[in-house]
Amino acid sequence: MSEADFRIGLLGHGTVGRAFEALLAQRSDEIAAVTGLRPRITGVLTRSRGDFARVLEEAELVVEVMGGLDPAREHVLAAMAAGRHVVTANKQLLSRHGEELWGLAREHGVQLRFEAAVAGVVPVIRVLQESLAAAHVERLHGIVNGTTNYILSEMARTGADYENALADAQRLGYAEADPTEDVSGEDAAAKMAILARLAFGTPVDLDQVRFEGIEHITAYDLEYARELGLGLKLIGTAERVDGGALNVRVHPAFLYPGHPLASVNGPYNAVTVESADITEITMSGPGAGGPQTASAVLGDVISAMIPPASTPEATSSLEVVQDVESAFYLHLEVADRPGVLAQVAQLLGLQGASIKSVVQRGLGEHARLVMVVHPMLESRFFAALELISRLDFVRARPRAIRVIEEEFT
Amino acid sequence: MSEADFRIGLLGHGTVGRAFEALLAQRSDEIAAVTGLRPRITGVLTRSRGDFARVLEEAELVVEVMGGLDPAREHVLAAMAAGRHVVTANKQLLSRHGEELWGLAREHGVQLRFEAAVAGVVPVIRVLQESLAAAHVERLHGIVNGTTNYILSEMARTGADYENALADAQRLGYAEADPTEDVSGEDAAAKMAILARLAFGTPVDLDQVRFEGIEHITAYDLEYARELGLGLKLIGTAERVDGGALNVRVHPAFLYPGHPLASVNGPYNAVTVESADITEITMSGPGAGGPQTASAVLGDVISAMIPPASTPEATSSLEVVQDVESAFYLHLEVADRPGVLAQVAQLLGLQGASIKSVVQRGLGEHARLVMVVHPMLESRFFAALELISRLDFVRARPRAIRVIEEEFT
Repeated sequence: MSEADFRIGLLGHGTVGRAFEALLAQRSDEIAAVTGLRPRITGVLTRSRGDFARVLEEAELVVEVMGGLDPAREHVLAAMAAGRHVVTANKQLLSRHGEELWGLAREHGVQLRFEAAVAGVVPVIRVLQESLAAAHVERLHGIVNGTTNYILSEMARTGADYENALADAQRLGYAEADPTEDVSGEDAAAKMAILARLAFGTPVDLDQVRFEGIEHITAYDLEYARELGLGLKLIGTAERVDGGALNVRVHPAFLYPGHPLASVNGPYNAVTVESADITEITMSGPGAGGPQTASAVLGDVISAMIPPASTPEATSSLEVVQDVESAFYLHLEVADRPGVLAQVAQLLGLQGASIKSVVQRGLGEHARLVMVVHPMLESRFFAALELISRLDFVRARPRAIRVIEEEFT
Repeated sequence: MSEADFRIGLLGHGTVGRAFEALLAQRSDEIAAVTGLRPRITGVLTRSRGDFARVLEEAELVVEVMGGLDPAREHVLAAMAAGRHVVTANKQLLSRHGEELWGLAREHGVQLRFEAAVAGVVPVIRVLQESLAAAHVERLHGIVNGTTNYILSEMARTGADYENALADAQRLGYAEADPTEDVSGEDAAAKMAILARLAFGTPVDLDQVRFEGIEHITAYDLEYARELGLGLKLIGTAERVDGGALNVRVHPAFLYPGHPLASVNGPYNAVTVESADITEITMSGPGAGGPQTASAVLGDVISAMIPPASTPEATSSLEVVQDVESAFYLHLEVADRPGVLAQVAQLLGLQGASIKSVVQRGLGEHARLVMVVHPMLESRFFAALELISRLDFVRARPRAIRVIEEEFT
């Protein structure tokens, strides 16, 4: 007997809608294993195609990724009124009509999930709503607009001025032809209104969020930042002030290097939540992109499909292996005599090692030989190391430390 | 009419147990607002006090923070068999008896939650189990032991050798008198076994996790790291290898500065999850500590109390204010003549500004005056700025950028 179906209506079929459809098909088996239900898209509505009433009729849950206020608001309200769960990625809708939508979800006992509306796949909505449900949050700082973070990162990295960095971002697809909503801080303000509502349990109207953009930032400002080791970011802040009040704002700000958001570069998003109980936690990741947004939507869909699960049964039985490939830093204390490097290199070479860099320093009669080798099977590296340690010119136990070579930004 | 009670049995009354009891009392009103239920501790069991059968009888949910394998395992199994939800912070228990415990939870339809068992308040368990429930995770890197991260950070910062940094960590309470479990990598290995189980859906026995500690790391290794701009961390890795196999290991590793874990310093924990769909997300925060662990336990308790909620009603009505205090960077293009700085400083001073630093640079007839002022009410700063912009020697629109002064590590 096959699993029961779980019927999903899809509103919107642009980049995110299509990415969601593809991801859902690709993950169908895993989802069935986790939830006991097989998800199926039973209807699609676009601006030019499909009938909303019919999509709704056939669905248990509606995914809204059309964006904009109309007709998204109307459709989401109708779906919840008809008892359907809703997953949406629509930040405009939530920042302008959140109380109405959340109120209706409560009234009809349905779930309204919206992880993808803020910071894409960075799970800040879930963490605020669940992990920190009763925490007394003091402050929340966020880099919640990837376009502006990319532009500021490029200005910092290359010394470019704002106009050139913006043009680059447009060329690479990180900024739109009309970048106003991003660079003015308005997009970030909408996201901060949503985060503030969740973190502080207080309704926040978008009009109550002050915002300032990055259009006036100059190459000199970033030169100053570099000289002092500071980061310059477009920062959204929501914080308690004067005991009983709340302030929500977006503006460029310098950050000291110890701040968790200072090292967030490129088109990334990140949010730091501060509270006396937790000190602070930071979450970061790519802010947008079709597959990332689709992945956030899918996480919400799966959560809506199941009660808060006990740990699912083991869904795979991968073989657990011990030997893997690693790059290595190798540190040797050797006698300072000719041929030392050649013999070490030969032993490494016999095991297939490729040397990336070598530094040799004389220390009187001894020398210190430090090298980095490219990734190789660890068992083979250690076989070479064992032989190297027995060479008569090696004066101390060789030291090896792995090197993780990935850079993300 | 008051809310119904929610009855909690507490096993263990050490640092974490007492912190949990205090936090629960402190957050009682918020929890009632979020869940509609008022949590109450109906029984406490310690090694010397209390009767397990009676604690169990009176509770709907059991919090296990006694640690160790016995009698924790027996109590947790008995509680679930009796239909009670369980929240535990016990990494040993889960890394050694996880399959037995998860199986029993499924069998009896109860929740077994354990956010606090790995990386304290960093919500990695919830994110793996819920946000990424059907994601195809490729790799997971973690700094999951705060003691070793503190020691390595101090060695990097001060140039100290391992023995001295360890002694400092012991003095400050970051390392235990017998630090073996932490510095050998064994503690991190237990946590990685749990994370790997969740990320890959494959049972992982603690014996299958290779680990190497930090006892052999020298001051020279960190000097090398500093010279090359690398971070040196104790890294746990769980990753797919050769297509269908899994490797889980813990060892020191160098990280390039662009790696999200490279900037995680001090007694912090962080986890990076990589998958094609999401690129990668990183979560970080304090790894341990009584209040932080208690906060993670409380998040789990609240989740067990409620069905996956629609957004709770607004629970507070903070006034949303516009004006706050900020530190500012102020950049002025001025005529290079005497008295300029004095006049600017006077206008700032009249608004209560205190100047932290000033740099003045001549540029032919003009000069560039850059200053940072200590935090002050923004409205007062901008009032001064308005007057400054009207001074006859100011050659261009002044530029002001806020400075966030907090450093976390």
